[in-house]
Amino acid sequence: MTENVITAYAAPTANAPLERTTVPRREVGPRDIVIDIKYAGICHSDIHQAKDEWGGAIFPMVPGHEIAGVVAEVGSEVTRHAVGDRVGVGCMVDSCRECENCRAGLEQHCTGNPGTVMTYNGRHHDGTPTYGGYATQVVVDQDFALRIPESLSLDVAAPLLCAGVTVYSPLSRYGAGPGKRVAVVGLGGLGHMAVQIAHAMGAEVTVLSQSLRKKEDGLKLGADEYRATSDATTFKELAGSFDLIVNTVSADLDLDAYLGLLRAGGTMVQVGAPEKPVSLSVFSLLGGGKSMAGSMIGGIPETQEMLDFCAEHGIGSKIELIEAKDVNEAYERVLAGDVRFRFVIDNATI
Amino acid sequence: MTENVITAYAAPTANAPLERTTVPRREVGPRDIVIDIKYAGICHSDIHQAKDEWGGAIFPMVPGHEIAGVVAEVGSEVTRHAVGDRVGVGCMVDSCRECENCRAGLEQHCTGNPGTVMTYNGRHHDGTPTYGGYATQVVVDQDFALRIPESLSLDVAAPLLCAGVTVYSPLSRYGAGPGKRVAVVGLGGLGHMAVQIAHAMGAEVTVLSQSLRKKEDGLKLGADEYRATSDATTFKELAGSFDLIVNTVSADLDLDAYLGLLRAGGTMVQVGAPEKPVSLSVFSLLGGGKSMAGSMIGGIPETQEMLDFCAEHGIGSKIELIEAKDVNEAYERVLAGDVRFRFVIDNATI
Repeated sequence: MTENVITAYAAPTANAPLERTTVPRREVGPRDIVIDIKYAGICHSDIHQAKDEWGGAIFPMVPGHEIAGVVAEVGSEVTRHAVGDRVGVGCMVDSCRECENCRAGLEQHCTGNPGTVMTYNGRHHDGTPTYGGYATQVVVDQDFALRIPESLSLDVAAPLLCAGVTVYSPLSRYGAGPGKRVAVVGLGGLGHMAVQIAHAMGAEVTVLSQSLRKKEDGLKLGADEYRATSDATTFKELAGSFDLIVNTVSADLDLDAYLGLLRAGGTMVQVGAPEKPVSLSVFSLLGGGKSMAGSMIGGIPETQEMLDFCAEHGIGSKIELIEAKDVNEAYERVLAGDVRFRFVIDNATI
Repeated sequence: MTENVITAYAAPTANAPLERTTVPRREVGPRDIVIDIKYAGICHSDIHQAKDEWGGAIFPMVPGHEIAGVVAEVGSEVTRHAVGDRVGVGCMVDSCRECENCRAGLEQHCTGNPGTVMTYNGRHHDGTPTYGGYATQVVVDQDFALRIPESLSLDVAAPLLCAGVTVYSPLSRYGAGPGKRVAVVGLGGLGHMAVQIAHAMGAEVTVLSQSLRKKEDGLKLGADEYRATSDATTFKELAGSFDLIVNTVSADLDLDAYLGLLRAGGTMVQVGAPEKPVSLSVFSLLGGGKSMAGSMIGGIPETQEMLDFCAEHGIGSKIELIEAKDVNEAYERVLAGDVRFRFVIDNATI
């Protein structure tokens, strides 16, 4: 069974750095495809999970749910992909397929048993652990692999599979488009995708960031305005301005202040979440008939729609390509906010 | 100028009961109508304001923003109403007419200067105080008086002007209708209207109330189900059930528990508000892509739409008609939750 072992970078325990090792590669079932992974993005949630900060982590853990690669082998019943196809895998690799949400293409909200199977740090329906993208290969059900259009380079496409769809979904659902004013809070891995996508959708985009440090980047990415939230006049001058605010930061913000930036009928969408409960005044929602919403990645059909949209508009993640051996250093730099805007592992270096 | 004085029940100060008195009636301008008030509903917010619990109260205060009556006189330029017409007045009597929200028919969210003029405990654009419905007459601009269809009795129509539109607006905006499951939290003045309206819209309606004390009433009003929130199994059994929750109670609820009752994509709308900030976990919104929204009465066009809808479906408030002299006792009973479901003053007794 040596052929069923792959090389990967894995966290052996919650307190140790990632190291090069081997992990089992699952058998290729009739509906599975084998992907030679070319690139894997580093998502902040990889770090949370590798350090077991959310609890229940399964070790050894091979992180990575922003996967881009090429199909190397297909099972006997596979119809959706062929050897040589350029494909991506995001945060999930299976779900029940039968519940109301799965049937509606919202597999990320699967209510079946055992529910959504996360790409790593999860368990397949047979109980075996899932391993993610910091590896040479991955085996996934054909339905959970997405087509990456030819015009998108695989390296800049990888982060779209999580960061891209995480912001595309609420921008699409809440109608970002011509005539709409959209604010993006935070210009990191998620925020820099939100700016590009909202701009491509035709919305007027404002970045709200702690400082003006990344202003030039923000404007280049398509923002029309860039304002510092550390400047109190920002909240006065932009009061009642936005149809939609996409909040990409997990820090504990003054939600009432941000809700004050919405127009009547506007929505503030959280795509990250502080670990502790948040506090807000319901009066901030009543005045102006406003909403605070949450959004979590996107379903499989919407992820494909996002990839096609990004290809059509020439949108990719802005990345720093690294060798696999530098992954632990990259983690440190992510924690320090020192990345513009996404680290992507060149899996040829694993 | 004796003709410009009307009899009313007014709170002389924050700490005194309402008493029969006279207050000035404003001049009838060319676009104004004079309404002989026949009925005035008692809204819980009348009590908050008469006791100055929200601050900034103007005394003497004539409460009442659920007004139904008959046009007694019209100004020279009035085109929308004629003497003898049956009309209603809700929570506001003027706004700037020019801001984006006013132009969109959202006068309750007027951003102009001086903004929305509340029916009582407010000030007209010229600075004079407004007086509400616990009076023999009121003078309002024709644009802020609504037509009450013939098939609605004026007494049961009065509470529609605030309680009715407060729940109609979010039910309409968030798509209550056939195939949708709607929960109404609380079966009071607002809740009993929400049940009737959601049922008439074709939704499947569940009442969530502290106890089963009013179950029979709720089912008669059109609820399909009635569950006690004091019973922990309610939250287990109804998890993921509702497309929409209309929360009519101002008490501090466990919002995470209620958000758990929503289906993926569902919305919980607050139409009341606890005075203190509320706390919730953003994870309750992320999982399932849910929203928490606020809604505050409705604009003038939507209020008319609501009245027409209620007339078409034979919906009125369920009321206890009282004499004006009993208003202070009625206040006590509202505070004790002892009313099914709305007190309405017979203004002939003022």
